[in-house]
Amino acid sequence: MLSYRNELDKMPSYDGVEKNYRIKVNANESTMNLPPLVEERVLNRLAMLAFNRYPNEEYHSLVEQIAKNFSVDASQILLGGGSSEIIEKVFHAFGGAGKRVVFPQPSFSMYKIYAKAAESEGIAFNLDAKFDLDVEKFIAAVHDTNANLAVVCNPNNPTGNALTLEQVEKIAASIDCAFLLDEAYVEFYGRSAVNLVAKYPNLLVARTFSKAYGLAGARVGYMIAQAEVTRMVNKTFMPYHMNKLSLATADIVYQMRDEFVPRLQMIIAERQRIIERLQKISGVEVFPSNTNFVLIRLSRAEELKNYLESLDIGIRYFSPSAFGLKNCLRISIGTRAENDAVFDAINSLLTN
Amino acid sequence: MLSYRNELDKMPSYDGVEKNYRIKVNANESTMNLPPLVEERVLNRLAMLAFNRYPNEEYHSLVEQIAKNFSVDASQILLGGGSSEIIEKVFHAFGGAGKRVVFPQPSFSMYKIYAKAAESEGIAFNLDAKFDLDVEKFIAAVHDTNANLAVVCNPNNPTGNALTLEQVEKIAASIDCAFLLDEAYVEFYGRSAVNLVAKYPNLLVARTFSKAYGLAGARVGYMIAQAEVTRMVNKTFMPYHMNKLSLATADIVYQMRDEFVPRLQMIIAERQRIIERLQKISGVEVFPSNTNFVLIRLSRAEELKNYLESLDIGIRYFSPSAFGLKNCLRISIGTRAENDAVFDAINSLLTN
Repeated sequence: MLSYRNELDKMPSYDGVEKNYRIKVNANESTMNLPPLVEERVLNRLAMLAFNRYPNEEYHSLVEQIAKNFSVDASQILLGGGSSEIIEKVFHAFGGAGKRVVFPQPSFSMYKIYAKAAESEGIAFNLDAKFDLDVEKFIAAVHDTNANLAVVCNPNNPTGNALTLEQVEKIAASIDCAFLLDEAYVEFYGRSAVNLVAKYPNLLVARTFSKAYGLAGARVGYMIAQAEVTRMVNKTFMPYHMNKLSLATADIVYQMRDEFVPRLQMIIAERQRIIERLQKISGVEVFPSNTNFVLIRLSRAEELKNYLESLDIGIRYFSPSAFGLKNCLRISIGTRAENDAVFDAINSLLTN
Repeated sequence: MLSYRNELDKMPSYDGVEKNYRIKVNANESTMNLPPLVEERVLNRLAMLAFNRYPNEEYHSLVEQIAKNFSVDASQILLGGGSSEIIEKVFHAFGGAGKRVVFPQPSFSMYKIYAKAAESEGIAFNLDAKFDLDVEKFIAAVHDTNANLAVVCNPNNPTGNALTLEQVEKIAASIDCAFLLDEAYVEFYGRSAVNLVAKYPNLLVARTFSKAYGLAGARVGYMIAQAEVTRMVNKTFMPYHMNKLSLATADIVYQMRDEFVPRLQMIIAERQRIIERLQKISGVEVFPSNTNFVLIRLSRAEELKNYLESLDIGIRYFSPSAFGLKNCLRISIGTRAENDAVFDAINSLLTN
């Protein structure tokens, strides 16, 4: 009998192949591939890569670009395999036996798993019935549990709502432990806390290329914090943890990020349009959104999910046991045509 | 003051940019980029990728291919970011407080770091003066230390020598704990232990696309073990830890692996040719090699390293404190022209 790491048997496994839907709005991906101009430059860059050489300057080139954009020093930036890996490593860096991590629920479902993977105790803080975070109570929870790490997703997945920057700053200023702000969706909101990093040595901001930049397949994210924090978190990353293809792709995408602005504007406009249409359907509660998705609640949620799947449309359904998300569905915003097709399908079931 | 994970401050950091040499034979990379036919198909495949979608079938497609090649079940294969990540995760899966990992020295220098990262005790087992592993003594060391994981790199980096398959099997059969065989260089040796996996439930074989397939930049490796072992080790990997670009690239490379056979034959022939030439230089001890590199020892090692660097040739020099490697240099095998240039430079310094 092999003897595995303590508690490893209790960790979940990930090995499923997801279904490919005709309209796939279940994973908050961009439904559009790279803009043609960007794709052309990415492919040209990939054609010049030395696949045979270990990644080297590619990491630093992207770091320098990001640092310049935010007017921070390159030593304040770390790259990871999506913000997923950033979050995983931050949990590890501040985790371990006897350490506690506080995060809201409902929020990104992986926080609980990352806490477990870091052999820490995950402590869920309940959002209220409208999915709002009571900042004073959250701060109190961090203090009361003697937490080592507090995590907030802003705007929040899967609820779509957001804290103001003043609320974020209030948390950063009021707790002594590390404060990880997961800004995976912040480009759809427009109010990043990166500028607060200079003032708060406990603040770590995680960002990603997966959502607004449509690079979910490349797995590139980054973290911005004070240099001493990145120096320590960097110790959890092994050499060559980032690959050259993804780094080169993200480098071009970031150089050409202005090309993504029209898409962001379109998604924000479409989000508003779809929210207004959904609100007109009786029995559907629509939650406000600052992201590229919309959360709705209706008693016929499971039936609607099954109906949409029968039309080869994939949306996100939550298990009835997921805290606060009973009868909720999450719909990513796609192109206008996709959004119309999804809306028409929803409407046809619910108004019959 | 933020409170980091216990002992994290003692972990090293990795953030240097390596020098690009005119002739770079210091990292056991392939000095040749992808064969033109392969590169063309890789670029065509990348041009069809949905960068915007999370990796999905790409992982399973590569797993199926590898499984078919080795006549094992797909459930016996895990992919990682180079064999580096495979090794990191295996150390984690069998590690933790109070756990011990036994590995030879000199060998891959990262084993010590991976043991520390897994919060385990790394125990180095000394190779003899000729860098041979005494199998009986190694088995005894695994027993005596009550180790949880034994690791052998075969053929061994940086020494180049190899255990026979009988010796590997002897170890697998004689120890009860997990036995990780790191076969990063096995394509240059030709005797993989993958077929022993069916017989030994404690055997885990790590392989990589970085060396023989010249994909060091893409970071793709794999592990083959019995299904129950992969099921457990898989729990240490978070979702979407592999990116779509690297998976698609490795998928094409593996489909076209016959295209790499002439290169393997060339490197093996060049290795022999260079060994014979180096042996003729007085004062140079040349170690036998079953890999894509050659280890030499000479009293003027540091001087030679500096001289080669002055010619913009990068080879691997070991710190005088590295166990057993005093005055050793490691030279990766490149093309015939590169090998001649390196040899001529060595010869010109040492025979003057």
